[in-house]
Parts: sequence; C-alpha cells; structure tokens
Amino acid sequence: MKLYEKLADEMTEAVRRGVFASGERIPSVRQASQQHGVSIKTVLHAYALLESRGIVESRPQSGYFVREAAAKALAADAIPSAGRKAARETPPVAAEVDVSRLVLSTLRSIRAHDAVPFGSPYPDPSLFPWRRINQYANAIARRHASWNLIDDLPPGNPELIRQIARRYAENGVPVDPDEIVITLGATEAINLSLQAVAKPGDTVAVESPTYYAMLHAIERLGMRAIEVATHPVHGIDIDALAQVIAKQKIAACMVMPNFQNPLGFQMPDERKRQLVELLAAHEIPAIENDVYQELYYGDTRPSTLKNFDSKGLVLHCASFSKSLTASYRIGWAMPGRYRAQVEKLKFLNTLTTPSVPQVAVADYLRQDGYDRHLRHVRKVYRQQANIMMALVQRFFPVGTRMSTPQGGYVLWVELPASVDSMRLYQAALARSITVGPGMMFSTRNDFRHFIRLNYSYPWTAQSEAALRTLGELVTQMA
Amino acid sequence: MKLYEKLADEMTEAVRRGVFASGERIPSVRQASQQHGVSIKTVLHAYALLESRGIVESRPQSGYFVREAAAKALAADAIPSAGRKAARETPPVAAEVDVSRLVLSTLRSIRAHDAVPFGSPYPDPSLFPWRRINQYANAIARRHASWNLIDDLPPGNPELIRQIARRYAENGVPVDPDEIVITLGATEAINLSLQAVAKPGDTVAVESPTYYAMLHAIERLGMRAIEVATHPVHGIDIDALAQVIAKQKIAACMVMPNFQNPLGFQMPDERKRQLVELLAAHEIPAIENDVYQELYYGDTRPSTLKNFDSKGLVLHCASFSKSLTASYRIGWAMPGRYRAQVEKLKFLNTLTTPSVPQVAVADYLRQDGYDRHLRHVRKVYRQQANIMMALVQRFFPVGTRMSTPQGGYVLWVELPASVDSMRLYQAALARSITVGPGMMFSTRNDFRHFIRLNYSYPWTAQSEAALRTLGELVTQMA
Repeated sequence: MKLYEKLADEMTEAVRRGVFASGERIPSVRQASQQHGVSIKTVLHAYALLESRGIVESRPQSGYFVREAAAKALAADAIPSAGRKAARETPPVAAEVDVSRLVLSTLRSIRAHDAVPFGSPYPDPSLFPWRRINQYANAIARRHASWNLIDDLPPGNPELIRQIARRYAENGVPVDPDEIVITLGATEAINLSLQAVAKPGDTVAVESPTYYAMLHAIERLGMRAIEVATHPVHGIDIDALAQVIAKQKIAACMVMPNFQNPLGFQMPDERKRQLVELLAAHEIPAIENDVYQELYYGDTRPSTLKNFDSKGLVLHCASFSKSLTASYRIGWAMPGRYRAQVEKLKFLNTLTTPSVPQVAVADYLRQDGYDRHLRHVRKVYRQQANIMMALVQRFFPVGTRMSTPQGGYVLWVELPASVDSMRLYQAALARSITVGPGMMFSTRNDFRHFIRLNYSYPWTAQSEAALRTLGELVTQMA
Repeated sequence: MKLYEKLADEMTEAVRRGVFASGERIPSVRQASQQHGVSIKTVLHAYALLESRGIVESRPQSGYFVREAAAKALAADAIPSAGRKAARETPPVAAEVDVSRLVLSTLRSIRAHDAVPFGSPYPDPSLFPWRRINQYANAIARRHASWNLIDDLPPGNPELIRQIARRYAENGVPVDPDEIVITLGATEAINLSLQAVAKPGDTVAVESPTYYAMLHAIERLGMRAIEVATHPVHGIDIDALAQVIAKQKIAACMVMPNFQNPLGFQMPDERKRQLVELLAAHEIPAIENDVYQELYYGDTRPSTLKNFDSKGLVLHCASFSKSLTASYRIGWAMPGRYRAQVEKLKFLNTLTTPSVPQVAVADYLRQDGYDRHLRHVRKVYRQQANIMMALVQRFFPVGTRMSTPQGGYVLWVELPASVDSMRLYQAALARSITVGPGMMFSTRNDFRHFIRLNYSYPWTAQSEAALRTLGELVTQMA
C-alpha cells in the first residue's frame, strides 16, 4: 500500500470512529504533514483520494471538511458505542454472576433503549429542586475567579460539613462535625470505609439480599462476602449473624438498616441496638449505608446505628444523591474511630470532591428549603408505592409476593418460583421495559425469581401499560 | 447530673462544635423534647440554664438563638479545624516518612496560613479560562431538568471522549475513542490503572524522585515501590530499570515522561521508545502520567509512551486539571488492553464522574479557544521559569543547583547537603512561605536537601521578597 493510501485509510478510520465528526474540519495539509511525518505532496494526494471517496469535501479558503452523509454511513456501527456494548454484554443466563457487570449492563440498557425505568436504581430526577441548586452553583461560579483545589480538600468544605452535622443534631443523632468526611457520593464513602477496616482476603458479612454497591466494594477490594439471612420487615437476622461470627473471623458487617435496597424495611430501634451490641462485643466494625435516611414514610426520621454506637465502631455512610441531587455526587462518611484512615484514603483515592457542588449544596441547605422539598417527596413516594403495589397485585399472577416499603422508592417482588428473572429482564427489554433482576443482589443463586421495581417516576398511561405487559410476561413464564 | 443539666451540656457542646452557629436558632422546645425523648418541662429547664449561662437568648415569638459572643468564645478552639490540625500535624523531622500525610499537611498549611504558595502542586487558577467554562456549565444547568446519572456513566460523556480523542489525533497520537475512560482527575485514572494491572504485595517500579501521587497509589493498594535512578534531563535510567527487572518480578512501571514533577524533564523520543520496548519484552505494563502534556515550552507537543506502544501495555493517564480547570476534576485513562478492567473499576470506585463538568469541558473544547489559551499559558510559564531560576541563583547560597524545566511549572532545587528541607519547610512556614520538601518525592531519605518550587503565580514584590527570605534561611542553615 502506498503512503498516501495508508494516510487516507487512517483518516477514513478516524471519521468512522467519530474522531472527526460530520461537518468538521480535518487537519490542514500542513498540520497533517507535520503530524504524520509525511510530505505535503503525500497529504494532498491522500486528501484527494478522500474527496474522491466522498468522505471529505474541500471548501475554498477553509480547508477540508467531513461530508455529512459519509460521517453517518461510516459511523453507523461506531456510535453510540455504549449502547452497542450493552446489547452485546447482556449477560447470559448462568449460575455464576459477575454482579458489577450485570448492574452496569442493566443501567446501560435503560439509557440505550430509553426504556420504562422500573429497573433504575435512581430516583426520578425531575422531583429534585434542581433549579434552585443550579442557581446556587451558578452564583458561586460567577463569584469566584476559580476554585482553588486547596480550599475544600478532605475532609471537605467546612460549611457543608456544618450543615450536615446540624441536620443530624436536629434529628437527635449525636454528631461531631470533625468526624465527617465529604466523599464523591455514598459509593466512595462505602469503598473508603471498607478499605479502612478490612484487607484483601478478609470476609465481610452482608445482608441477603443486599444492595449491590456493598458487593461491588467487596469485589473491588478482593474480599469475600458472606450473606446472612435478612427478614423483609426486621432486617438482618441477628441470631444467624451471631452464628456466623462464632464460626469464623468477620472483618466487617455491611448493612442498610433504613429502607434497605431492595427490601425497603426499617429495622426497629431495638434490633439496631442489638446489632450494634453484638458487633461491638466482637470488636467488628459496622458499615452503615443510610442513603435513604430522608425518604421515610413514617412521622419521624428513623434512628441510625450511630445512635447506639458507644465504641466508635459504626462507619456511617450517606449522600444527597437520593434526596436532593444525584448529579452533584455529594456524599459523606462518619467513620467513628476510623476517621483518620477514611480521610486519608479519600485523599489518596480522588484527592478531593469538586468544590462548587459542595458549596452549592451547603448554600441550599442553609436557605432552609430542604425540609419542604423532602415533605413533598416523601408524600409522592408513599402514594406511588401504594399504586405500584396495587397494580402488581392486579397484573401479576397468583403466587406473586412483594415487600411493604417503609421508605425509599423500590419494591421487591417475588415471582412464582419457575420464573427466571434474567429471562424476564431480556423479554422486557425487548419491549423497552427494564426491571432489576434479583441476581444483582446476591453472589448466590437465591433470588433468581425476584425483581426490584422503581416507583419514583410519576404514573402515566405508558408506565401502567408497561407494568401490565410485565405481568403478562410473568404469567407466560410461570 | 440531672437530665436537664445533661441536655444543657449537650447543647453547649453542639454550639462549641459549631453545629449551631452564632445567631442561629436552636431546635424549638417541642422539637428538642421529641428528639431527645425528654419532657417539655426538662427542655424548658435546660434552655433556661443555657440562657443563664449566656449561651442562648430567647426572642419573643421566635425561639432560642445562639448568642454571638458565646459562639465565638466556645468555638475558638473548634474552627477552623483543618487549620488547627495542620499546625498539630506538621510532621516531625524523622527518618521514616508517611508520604501522603506529609503531602496533605503541606497542602493544608498553604490554605491555613494564606502563605506564598511556592509549595503548591497546583497551577495558579487565575490563569484558567474559568469565566468561559463556568458559562458553559451554567448554560447546561439551565438547559436540563437535572442530569440523570445514567446519561454519562462510564466510560463517560461521548462528546467529551470524542473531543479528547480528536486532540490526540491532531497531535499524531493514534487513539481509539473507545479506549478512553473518563475519571475524577488523573488521580483516579492512576489509581484505577494500577489496580487493573497489579495486586497487593506486588512490586512497582517508579522514578526517583517520583511524583508523590504515584507513591500514594502504591501505598493505597498495599503494594511496594522500588525506586529507579532518574536523570534530570533524560528521565528514568533504562539500564538501571533493566537490572531491577532482571532481579525481581515487577508488576508495573509508573513514569511521567513529559515534564516530570518534580524534575521537569522531557524524555527524548528515543528513550521513550527504549523504555516501552524494554517493558514490552517482559510484558510489564507501563502507567504513564501525562498531566503536563499541554504545558510544553518547545514548539510541538511531545510524544507519549502511547506513540511507541504496539502491545497495548501502556496505560496512559491525563487530565485537564493542570491546563484548563482544576476544580472540575476531569481526567481520563487510555488503558490499552486493560480498558475493560479500568472501566469496571471506575464504576466500582466512584460510579460516575459528574455530568455537568464533563459536558462543560466538552463544550469548551469544541469552541476552539483551548489552543489560544494554551499558547498564552505556555509563554507565561516559560517566562516565569526563567525569572525563578535567575532569582534562585541570586538569592540562594553557593552549592545550590537546580533543574531546567522543559514544561510544567515547578523547579527542583538541590540545596547544600547540610540543609534539612523539613526544617526549612517549618522555618519558611513560620514566615508564611511554603515549599515542597524533597521527602515527599521518595520513600527513601535521598532528597532531604531538595525542595520543589512552584512558579505558576505571577511575580510580585511580595513573592520576590519571599524567595529572598527563603534564600536567607537556606544560607543560615547551610
């Protein structure tokens, strides 16, 4: 192959990959000559070839531009790559599940197919007070030359930390602001907390089913998970946990005592206390994921494990992503006696959490609109939970059972035992409906006939029809 | 102690900690009664006690408010906690150094003391085109209801990825956009890359001196670092590296071939090629930190290890934090054959990088102002490097030697061997001047008489005086 043909092929490939998009100028002849270390003449020859292939057109005084039709034709199989990958990566029905791969491909399916988001783990963003928060962010961005990274290094912006501490104090949770470390969402808080208390190879006790972010953290750090039976109303079985602890060394216990995802329970205070005491008796740290703390359906914010923690063994993790803004990615950890380690790991992991989102959330919290917003959201979710439960009862076959969420926005549904939720997931996806397959919530095979349904989005004729379709699919598969 | 006294003490403590700030309303009597599970009468009694102590005042029809004087007096030793901690944590002069603790306390000192930032690792943010980037961010925030997390999940926003790929392509680096994974700054890219190729206990080869983020990543993942002699002009000693590889198993090699921090060299192309080939011959992955790629003083952007990588063994990491915006925290990895692992680890580590910053940077890049901005910055840094070098020569004692930076914005200074840079650091800090102590750049004791100086800030009478003071301190200590 001649040099100019090689160059023309490379440029064609670049257009195919979307490096140069439709209507964009490709490098000038002189630039291309320098970049590729070839003569001007070779570039001219290559560009002429591209022109004759219909890939670029020359415009007088301007240079060479990618032709629209060519870009489209070439890029057809190149973009959106994530969408194609999601389709390719749809996991097979298999005994062994790589939980993170399944979760990521579920999330991608939602995006790629613009599907009814029953499978989404995230709340409907349109309920968030995004206009006000963005206004604060914009005001900050206009006010300052540029945020110096140093300003809000770990542990984080002092005013944001103070606002978070104040909310806890107002709810009767004793909090020392010095204990709080701001993170990139609760995801990072959980990861750092686990890394602070356990090392690769260690065994970590989790609920069963458990929120998959817990399994991700364990997977990422090369630890092993042991799943402990968890009651849909009372939470983790404390006797079963005690037996596990008696038999083997447990480095940490990861739980979600309030509105657990996927079960939706609120652990009674007495059981929270028992759990903390059992773990404290064995000096086992508890990692508490409390991201749904503000989304309660009862009259008051529930207690946390932190309320019963006298030894500093509870590493409490939370965020604003479920209740205020998901895209700002502001979370925090209150790691008890492990505070210094978590702060240091935060610094090592991602250096710092972006400043403007930190300050914008702090400003919003100070203006006192948060409680009004939360009252509204809680009411909406409670109502939508009732509708979802009634419709599942109506559309799904006999033998279907479900949780009774006490907060949050997900419903856990047990299908007739013969239904394979991975097959259901794929059949539903073909109809632009997503569900959360039960296998995401365990490393074992126990929840193959379970699904998680998100009810944070407002009910429409479309979503009702989608749920009816889902019920029909389940009936066929049962 | 009576119940109301206990409650009053708790509230006093909350004010001392800043949970309730000066002039703020504390919870109403009814709220406090519910929160603390005590009677209304007990709360009234407690609040009366607080009033008599001068901590709160009651305002008719409004409730109880924290008195300004009380808050100040109580909070005197509580805020700013980071500042106090920096003072307490100023590391002692010791043979063993915990690199990350030293780095974090150096950064905090800069903030706490509002000191002359010769010790800062970050560029002067006022040079960034922050107005334009923030305008894009604001426009995005106004345009969209709220960013759904799902939109820009790993690998990241497709348009941002395309813009990054385009810049590489224009500079002759062959890049497949599908290879790029967006991260939270280069810090995360480096962490994920290292985790993708090595496991706890493994040994990783680094330059000596090396940029401390490399050591942080190794420290965080429980690996071991082996330091390889590095020449201030040519970069890592390839023969020495070959000897290390011959003697022991090396899981990865972490280098900074362009404008290394702290040495400032640009590895010649031929040496880059030799390095890639040596590592490829032993199937050792190379983690390339290329964050200063755009800040070259020469005529063209330097090559990268990626240019010489035929086996997909180079994991290239970079960001916009040094050249465009530090506070947006947008970085990326091009992990070669390890792409799938890095993308998955990104998802597990922090779920996703915030959307608005991703889209804002993409929008900015598309508008084509970046190259003009970079031309300006490069010229400024080159000029300021010359001034810094001239002034060090003038103010520092005989026996002082320094690097000749080829890009970036830091100077590496070797002081007379008798000078202890930790003592210098503390003496300078007492005069509100910071320096980067040499011990941050090694796990060994080799660079105790070295310092790193940042010259990204414009020269003023104050900074010139500060450098003169620094020279005097060095002269006294020599």
